[in-house]
Amino acid sequence: MSVGEGLEALEPETCLELLRRHPSRVGRVAVADDGRRPTIMPVNYAVDDDAIVFRTAEGAKFSAAVRQAYVAFEVDDVDVAWKEGWSVLVRGQAEGVTDPEDLERVRALPLQPWARGARDHFVRIRPETITGRRLR
Amino acid sequence: MSVGEGLEALEPETCLELLRRHPSRVGRVAVADDGRRPTIMPVNYAVDDDAIVFRTAEGAKFSAAVRQAYVAFEVDDVDVAWKEGWSVLVRGQAEGVTDPEDLERVRALPLQPWARGARDHFVRIRPETITGRRLR
Repeated sequence: MSVGEGLEALEPETCLELLRRHPSRVGRVAVADDGRRPTIMPVNYAVDDDAIVFRTAEGAKFSAAVRQAYVAFEVDDVDVAWKEGWSVLVRGQAEGVTDPEDLERVRALPLQPWARGARDHFVRIRPETITGRRLR
Repeated sequence: MSVGEGLEALEPETCLELLRRHPSRVGRVAVADDGRRPTIMPVNYAVDDDAIVFRTAEGAKFSAAVRQAYVAFEVDDVDVAWKEGWSVLVRGQAEGVTDPEDLERVRALPLQPWARGARDHFVRIRPETITGRRLR
């Protein structure tokens, strides 16, 4: 992603710190189908070590797609009126969390499902790239 | 996208009304490369008739990709603590706005570029599908 005039590129560690501190803890996950047609879904996320973790609904079409795909995950805090803000983009392979020790740890994270009902699946994104931009 | 317990599916006209009224006017656009690897970028958007319009930087890699792709566009307003919110997803073909009459109209829209500098390109998404969910 190009960084234009007035945009400062952020280091990966700064990006992760922004993700950890972001009060809403809402990000968006994108996944593409065979025809390169992307879809986007908001998720409540947490940072577990350097990975992104979120919960998905069992049986949901999006959930099935996202657990075995290369995905993009984005968080931003942009004030259009004041022309201030930042955005962070994480790209990498998503996978279901299945290891019992990992599961015990991520179940303790403050992760809310979007809706009531069984939301048994935890998904982890292992970052391949972490990029960010701050607008000044 | 599945609509689970506590989630209400929204009609396309309701979705467009939410997009028109959303105070931040910040959404996210996703586009996928040949390898189905998606990327996401925040944009300041406006609704022009039933199409989504935003500005991109000339020469930017994302800008070039997004002007000839099937994209996803998402806006949400989610309060994780209160478990309230909504999200809208628009999917369709993106295209550069080139018609002189269209350009004159979209140039009058309140669209801010993310950064200073020449941002001459306007992109329009013609919705193929508009879906939304409200969490109660």
